[in-house]
Amino acid sequence: MAPRIWTAALVVIGDEILSGRTQDKNIAQLATWLNAQGIRLAEVRVVPDQQAAIVEAVNVLRARNDYCFTTGGIGPTHDDITVDAIAAALGVPVVVHAEARAALADYYASKGGLTEARLRMARVPDGADLIVNRMSGAPGIRWGNIFILAGVPHIAAGMLDALTGTLEGGLPVVSRTIGCWVAESEIADLLGETERAHDGVSIGSYPFFREGRVGANFVVRATDAAQVDRVTAVLADGLEARGFEAVDGGI
Amino acid sequence: MAPRIWTAALVVIGDEILSGRTQDKNIAQLATWLNAQGIRLAEVRVVPDQQAAIVEAVNVLRARNDYCFTTGGIGPTHDDITVDAIAAALGVPVVVHAEARAALADYYASKGGLTEARLRMARVPDGADLIVNRMSGAPGIRWGNIFILAGVPHIAAGMLDALTGTLEGGLPVVSRTIGCWVAESEIADLLGETERAHDGVSIGSYPFFREGRVGANFVVRATDAAQVDRVTAVLADGLEARGFEAVDGGI
Repeated sequence: MAPRIWTAALVVIGDEILSGRTQDKNIAQLATWLNAQGIRLAEVRVVPDQQAAIVEAVNVLRARNDYCFTTGGIGPTHDDITVDAIAAALGVPVVVHAEARAALADYYASKGGLTEARLRMARVPDGADLIVNRMSGAPGIRWGNIFILAGVPHIAAGMLDALTGTLEGGLPVVSRTIGCWVAESEIADLLGETERAHDGVSIGSYPFFREGRVGANFVVRATDAAQVDRVTAVLADGLEARGFEAVDGGI
Repeated sequence: MAPRIWTAALVVIGDEILSGRTQDKNIAQLATWLNAQGIRLAEVRVVPDQQAAIVEAVNVLRARNDYCFTTGGIGPTHDDITVDAIAAALGVPVVVHAEARAALADYYASKGGLTEARLRMARVPDGADLIVNRMSGAPGIRWGNIFILAGVPHIAAGMLDALTGTLEGGLPVVSRTIGCWVAESEIADLLGETERAHDGVSIGSYPFFREGRVGANFVVRATDAAQVDRVTAVLADGLEARGFEAVDGGI
């Protein structure tokens, strides 16, 4: 029986990503963290700071994935509308979470105390739990299979750290990379044949141009580490038989 | 009358982005290029190398935006399925484009000639035009309002260069950034009031932590450059009145 595959989706909320002002780092960060939990990142949507767009994305993605993460829009300013939008998506009211309020009062005790703006960060969709934030005032929020994280990557990282080991997942995907100074078009048939001959294995081909030469990295992925090793060896042999030398670990 | 807003969406196609192996750079690159064309990037989806996922994303996004871009999956290997998926989305057959075939034959003349794998890169959805690729063999493809670009960022950049000035757009969005050593929670009311008082202006607030201090950059955006300057001045005055010094251009 094929092992159950656990999937997650991510909704990146933020005009700053769509304007090109800010380079997103949360997609790669979440993907890497999910791999270690045995969960596959299946889909990402980047949406603007608009309630209708957030509602649509969250409702579609939470229904068809085991987990749905969001990043961004949980700060104290007028453009931070994630909590309100997700409460609307869920059809529940927004409430002040007592524990979040206490944590914020504590955090801001030496910084002028709680204000109306700062209290915004204690608001959650009714029924939510908090995700610890050791870096700054605003906690992350969990509601069912939805995980609401900060947009600032190192704060999101801290929240993921707090979640490590708490989500059910399957077998982590293992990968090995082979690099080769070869145009991928020269060995496309070898790649396709090798993938088709090994159930449950995917082989990705990622070309590059470096030092004035073309090359490619081939990434063998599966949940069975021994199978990944075997297929990597098959591929390396195939490359060598055609006169190309594979470099384990990639170029 | 409010000026017409032109929108584009992007479908990033690639298991390598969803696995965390590769850091996407095409979102920010396309967003920046679109701004200069007077087109707003309204939505992004990152989907795996699976036909059904590509078909769904392309069909939804091309219908509700003026333009729909894709990046990735147009190379010669088995995991390059973008052309087939988009042809399926459009309900048209895949054909070999004579001009693309000629360009590839030329490009590979000194590199072993055309092979079956390389010919894959001349395949297009029936009715497509080519987008020039000066960097490597595979051209980009235009079909209606769909623009199929390479996944490798510098090749995608060359294709965007070839498209510069050819797409109808509106007024470019102009932005100015003010930086300030202030916790955004301290001036959240000022930001919200200033935005609400100026129709057509959006103000984004992007906190940071640097040199052991908290600060934020405030980005004023609108299509009217004079209005952006006025609102930036209003915001700077407001910050100064509260004892914070604004730094034009950001921190």
